[in-house]
Amino acid sequence: MESLTSTAPLSSLPPFARRAALLSNTLPASAPAVNLAFDSGHAFPGVLPDLTLEATAALTTFRAETLQYAPKAGLPALKAHIADYMTGEGAEVTAAQILVTNGAKHAIELVCRLLIDEGDTIVVTAPTYFTAIPIFRSFGVRFIEVGQDEDGLDVDELADSLSRLRNAGEAMPKFVYNVPDFHNPTGVTMSLARRHALLELAQHYGILIIEDSPYRKVRFTGESLPSLKALDRAGVVVHVGTFSKLMAPGLRVGWAAASPALITRMIQLKSDGGSCPLTQRIIVEFLNAGRLTGHINRIQATYQANRDQMVAAVRRELPDVTLTIPEGGYYLWLTLPDGVDGDAVARAASASGVTVISGSKFFAMSDVHRARHHLRVAYSHASHEEIVLGIRALATGYQSVTESSVVVPAG
Amino acid sequence: MESLTSTAPLSSLPPFARRAALLSNTLPASAPAVNLAFDSGHAFPGVLPDLTLEATAALTTFRAETLQYAPKAGLPALKAHIADYMTGEGAEVTAAQILVTNGAKHAIELVCRLLIDEGDTIVVTAPTYFTAIPIFRSFGVRFIEVGQDEDGLDVDELADSLSRLRNAGEAMPKFVYNVPDFHNPTGVTMSLARRHALLELAQHYGILIIEDSPYRKVRFTGESLPSLKALDRAGVVVHVGTFSKLMAPGLRVGWAAASPALITRMIQLKSDGGSCPLTQRIIVEFLNAGRLTGHINRIQATYQANRDQMVAAVRRELPDVTLTIPEGGYYLWLTLPDGVDGDAVARAASASGVTVISGSKFFAMSDVHRARHHLRVAYSHASHEEIVLGIRALATGYQSVTESSVVVPAG
Repeated sequence: MESLTSTAPLSSLPPFARRAALLSNTLPASAPAVNLAFDSGHAFPGVLPDLTLEATAALTTFRAETLQYAPKAGLPALKAHIADYMTGEGAEVTAAQILVTNGAKHAIELVCRLLIDEGDTIVVTAPTYFTAIPIFRSFGVRFIEVGQDEDGLDVDELADSLSRLRNAGEAMPKFVYNVPDFHNPTGVTMSLARRHALLELAQHYGILIIEDSPYRKVRFTGESLPSLKALDRAGVVVHVGTFSKLMAPGLRVGWAAASPALITRMIQLKSDGGSCPLTQRIIVEFLNAGRLTGHINRIQATYQANRDQMVAAVRRELPDVTLTIPEGGYYLWLTLPDGVDGDAVARAASASGVTVISGSKFFAMSDVHRARHHLRVAYSHASHEEIVLGIRALATGYQSVTESSVVVPAG
Repeated sequence: MESLTSTAPLSSLPPFARRAALLSNTLPASAPAVNLAFDSGHAFPGVLPDLTLEATAALTTFRAETLQYAPKAGLPALKAHIADYMTGEGAEVTAAQILVTNGAKHAIELVCRLLIDEGDTIVVTAPTYFTAIPIFRSFGVRFIEVGQDEDGLDVDELADSLSRLRNAGEAMPKFVYNVPDFHNPTGVTMSLARRHALLELAQHYGILIIEDSPYRKVRFTGESLPSLKALDRAGVVVHVGTFSKLMAPGLRVGWAAASPALITRMIQLKSDGGSCPLTQRIIVEFLNAGRLTGHINRIQATYQANRDQMVAAVRRELPDVTLTIPEGGYYLWLTLPDGVDGDAVARAASASGVTVISGSKFFAMSDVHRARHHLRVAYSHASHEEIVLGIRALATGYQSVTESSVVVPAG
């Protein structure tokens, strides 16, 4: 062995991966200290369920299950419940087609691990769920953005893009990522005709669809539409679900539902000792006790009242701002007048005591002009009083920006 | 939009990623139905702690914390406990240098996400922890294998390899992965001199060391040696710990401890809504109650008795087999006589009613001759009676193989 001086300083760390260097668009690891947080999809504290009985059963009756490693695909009892739940929603899925994950984002990550090589293309809406963007980016994807209107993802625009790629002899995208129910951040729900058209297109080109549907049951008005998975006859849809919005975010239990060929490979790629059996069993006991339906009713009533409170506050305090009232979900998507910079308003609002997320965070590609005049504001977490105070603080921030005339070109 | 026939069958799924295609060496998703499982590091049921009080406190007093999203880096109270625990072990680590993960393998995966591009090289021992191999492989690494002796990883051999790479102008490996305490599968503990030599080498070449140390406290005899992290003055060690072996596998809480520069980037790459705050809080309450020391004492006594029982059974039932008695950990590493195929013995043992893992699973590269005459046998999970029955079943399998004269070249 060659001689080495033990005091030699480390010349340098090894270089980070390209995947890591590509990362950006993440929010600060720690949010600034403010009074009111409208930036995240936390649950309303008053509707967090009491899970003490479930936990006690899980840690006594089921101790040999909940304190050991769990089956990689999930507890059979939970997979059966999820399959029943999805079948009740019109998607004929068996327990063997379910993979339990550490939250929905873990399911998205596993789909990427299965499908994405650096440089592969995927399709996202513009805007799209901002937390998914760094996951995709960390796999080195190239994005194709597709617009949205009041019926959801613009399938005609996507068809044109795919046709051009095919004609140019280029590789097809690996998947289309979408939030068809109460889209995050826009709140738009994809129409039935668009759902059929998207499925047809995906099937034609051999492209998968990642259907991310955390808010599906958080519907206040209007008719629920079939999920893409319920309409999927060709096995092109990977449905991603979560108990974060059905029960509580802290449980960190989500799932993927897909064809057996895909689920089998995703299980192989899941590099943990099974997802947490304790939280899985707590959920099973909650479902066995028949508590889900009542809980969903409470959630719907709570978040509808919160939405109404926030819509009224925005109309009162921010008359220049436009919005479409969402039929469900956790968020309002505010459109600022042309020329008002959402990044500046979000910064000013934070200084005024309320955190909101600028629309620019929700665009995978840096089309700054289009991205800059929106805000996403969560009504899920705050009390009615906090909603009033927070929107007032947002209005203060807004006024400080418009009065100092920070103007960007109209989008 | 071009016309598409809605009944068009899906021509094909999109191609899987190279990362996915490279996978192999995984165990079957579901183990065959057998009576006795000596193949996994499950805890002994009798030492699983009663966590009902901790869970009740977590779901009442701390409900606003445990049912919401958690800080990405982990609960501050848990990070402080982990930093104290490591400092008590001689590694001066602050809470800011801790990242709580969904089990230890999640920490390993995050290190890979930060560092590995397809084609990068890493160093592993031969043999190495078999569950880490598919994680590394899924990132498209190339392996450098380094041998082991009774003092652990052969640092001279590694120095020669690195020197050759440097002289050939080739890229250095990104990291050395090792289990220095009660190595999985061999049970070997790395000597202090080797620890110093490995650190010096890593520092000289600017290579990180991933110190995976789940069994550190499961020591029965002999003196505990400083962890690599405790000896690390240059910030080259990423220490990976877990509560799976300190408390219970089902909690699915592990951690990484590393320099702030590395931990900050790993937090950015962690694409979940924080690790489960409920299980984190249960652990905090367990530690606050001062229960860890007593629990570790029980674990040590239990697994020492199990080890002694299994060593005696192996000597009685399998006199041809050689083994070194490990001073701690969960496993015996059995060396079969030259020419006896571990894969064949493991298959035959399974047919006789006991599952063990063939040594071949623990080699990252397919050097079949060297790999084939070992078995890893876990004494952690079974009762004394089951240990006797299981080793008897293993002996039956062994005899069926040796009597049918399945012979491979000596390794």
